[in-house]
Amino acid sequence: MSKIITLITDFGIKDCYVGVMKGVISSIISSASIIDLTHEVKAGDIEEAAFIIQAAFKYFPKGTIHVIVVDPGVGSNRRVIIVESKDYYFIAPDNGVLNYIVEPLKDIKIISALNKKYFLKDISHTFQGRDIFAPLAAYLALGIDIKEFGEEIKEITTFPIKKVTKEDSLLMGEVIYIDKFGNLVTNFTPLNLSFSKDIIIKIKDYKIFKINDFYAQSKEGELLAIWGSSDHLEISINGESAEEFLRAKKGDLVTVSLNSEKTSKF
Amino acid sequence: MSKIITLITDFGIKDCYVGVMKGVISSIISSASIIDLTHEVKAGDIEEAAFIIQAAFKYFPKGTIHVIVVDPGVGSNRRVIIVESKDYYFIAPDNGVLNYIVEPLKDIKIISALNKKYFLKDISHTFQGRDIFAPLAAYLALGIDIKEFGEEIKEITTFPIKKVTKEDSLLMGEVIYIDKFGNLVTNFTPLNLSFSKDIIIKIKDYKIFKINDFYAQSKEGELLAIWGSSDHLEISINGESAEEFLRAKKGDLVTVSLNSEKTSKF
Amino acid sequence: MSKIITLITDFGIKDCYVGVMKGVISSIISSASIIDLTHEVKAGDIEEAAFIIQAAFKYFPKGTIHVIVVDPGVGSNRRVIIVESKDYYFIAPDNGVLNYIVEPLKDIKIISALNKKYFLKDISHTFQGRDIFAPLAAYLALGIDIKEFGEEIKEITTFPIKKVTKEDSLLMGEVIYIDKFGNLVTNFTPLNLSFSKDIIIKIKDYKIFKINDFYAQSKEGELLAIWGSSDHLEISINGESAEEFLRAKKGDLVTVSLNSEKTSKF
Repeated sequence: MSKIITLITDFGIKDCYVGVMKGVISSIISSASIIDLTHEVKAGDIEEAAFIIQAAFKYFPKGTIHVIVVDPGVGSNRRVIIVESKDYYFIAPDNGVLNYIVEPLKDIKIISALNKKYFLKDISHTFQGRDIFAPLAAYLALGIDIKEFGEEIKEITTFPIKKVTKEDSLLMGEVIYIDKFGNLVTNFTPLNLSFSKDIIIKIKDYKIFKINDFYAQSKEGELLAIWGSSDHLEISINGESAEEFLRAKKGDLVTVSLNSEKTSKF
Repeated sequence: MSKIITLITDFGIKDCYVGVMKGVISSIISSASIIDLTHEVKAGDIEEAAFIIQAAFKYFPKGTIHVIVVDPGVGSNRRVIIVESKDYYFIAPDNGVLNYIVEPLKDIKIISALNKKYFLKDISHTFQGRDIFAPLAAYLALGIDIKEFGEEIKEITTFPIKKVTKEDSLLMGEVIYIDKFGNLVTNFTPLNLSFSKDIIIKIKDYKIFKINDFYAQSKEGELLAIWGSSDHLEISINGESAEEFLRAKKGDLVTVSLNSEKTSKF
Repeated sequence: MSKIITLITDFGIKDCYVGVMKGVISSIISSASIIDLTHEVKAGDIEEAAFIIQAAFKYFPKGTIHVIVVDPGVGSNRRVIIVESKDYYFIAPDNGVLNYIVEPLKDIKIISALNKKYFLKDISHTFQGRDIFAPLAAYLALGIDIKEFGEEIKEITTFPIKKVTKEDSLLMGEVIYIDKFGNLVTNFTPLNLSFSKDIIIKIKDYKIFKINDFYAQSKEGELLAIWGSSDHLEISINGESAEEFLRAKKGDLVTVSLNSEKTSKF
């Protein structure tokens, strides 16, 4: 059965960078199946890449190798890490892009990939997606044992996860991702927001009074809230872009409070 | 021989939505070959998706499964349909995107896909490309009989096709698609425009007096007409964008009349 | 082992043109693996396509078939050529896109592809990527001998390569490509710039006094020079776009001179 390698980069599609990575992989293992997750991460935006990989990784077959090359420190002495979990492999620079992946997974093994045997012969200082990440993915897909690539390490770089906080009867969260449709993905999940009625969701000066079951439940052009596909609460407009309408950006405050006197606590 | 699955969506390439659909497909059938037709359909633009699938489907090998996810009604009770024709399968929301496909094909079978056995276990209300369309395509590629997916139906949703009309000696059509180069695809086909000389093609205040054999027959920057690759008459500018020059949009009127007294009728 | 076919076009990703080419290829050879190098070449920009293919081709396995469809003369009588070198095949219009490929390679064979047996039956005048280039690539991948496709020729179309020139102690080059990050790729290579200290690199009114080992060696926002991944000197800004900051464009002058009295000659 052919191995799957997925790619997340900020390389865009104008240049041949992604295609060249695929050439390098195919030169080492011809039977791998390479799937693009996205190449449109904002240049150097580690948080965005971290959100995407956690939303996507589990929809792939066991054994899939996920490669993330969003790497503002390329060419410096930041480490390249390989993470092996029960079901998946991840290859990434050690800069926090695996932030949401490593914490919840158990029984993982992390390797600092230093063995140049598995790099291209000439390593550039600007395009290690081609020279290091692509060959590592290919050799891993070939079945090379993860221990061959370098030393096991215990700690990797992370950044503080933005959690929903509570102040009296007010839950305070924020926009953590904005998709192509202008849907505002928040950090509210079913864990911190377990009911959908009698609430007031506020963003900027707008209030939303319920959580939709589907977009078309609201009129075209109407602001709405809905549980999105990654199990996060999303602020959307049916048929339009909530990002444009609200001039929203990542980090914008989103609050949820109760709409009744019945109870004042979540 | 590996099955081919093609994808048309309005998901764009910024997010990981398309990649995740491919992950779901690959988790069910590892040998399928997935080809992107486009993910840049204007959000929710059913007519645009309908034009694209009819222009593209026949260039694929027999047995190809074409999946179209342009679905403004996602999560509502609109149906998901599977169409089986002699040579191809089509999976789409029942919203008109198969408008140009179903009419000319004969001996087709249409299924309303309701059997949850072939969906993902958890169905979101916002991303059924992942939860319904991708697994349906994968199971179909695995060889599951189309009858397994649901009940046969006879009628599907369509929208009125924009036809060329005739008023005295004037043929009236319109722009139905605009491509990346700014070429204006019209609804004139060889069926309603069988000669290429002694005609006047009019769009906005501009007149074109013949149909080119190739772009470079006109000078750079010159407005021209040409039979395009989907057998529709196209208005173009050699080396530039007719869309920008004419500030054209879909629905713009295009007329064809005779340029001689020899005859006054088409 | 499955054959690899790579694609470089200016077709963009909005339309189904690239997907349809893949459909045609898959209809002829189902086992080929098709890799996109880029479809975002500026419309008709032969020089840009020529730069990309020379930067990319050698990272693919031997036997790879590289297809370039940047073809402003489509439908005219410009030739379609197939080049066979020791390790690779190239299929392209004879308009200069193979400029950097053909010169350095030895023992190459060039065919003018005229045998309609290996085209689609109906040849459009606007989309020969589908009707000619895709089937040629597929039949070549099937193992058809290159001589079957047409007559051998000795000369192909080229354009003058922009070389670094020397005036006294001043080396004069230019920007030849700008990537998605706004990095300015120049025509300086290690062949004409063999040392990295005691030099002054000038572009517009800015001076750079050394060549970085990696981006992060400079502060964020600082203009820098670095050997890029295609072994060309690049002008960059750490974390920003040099293109935007300098309002740079292809053809802009870049000079290198010595910064010391020790020697006045390169």
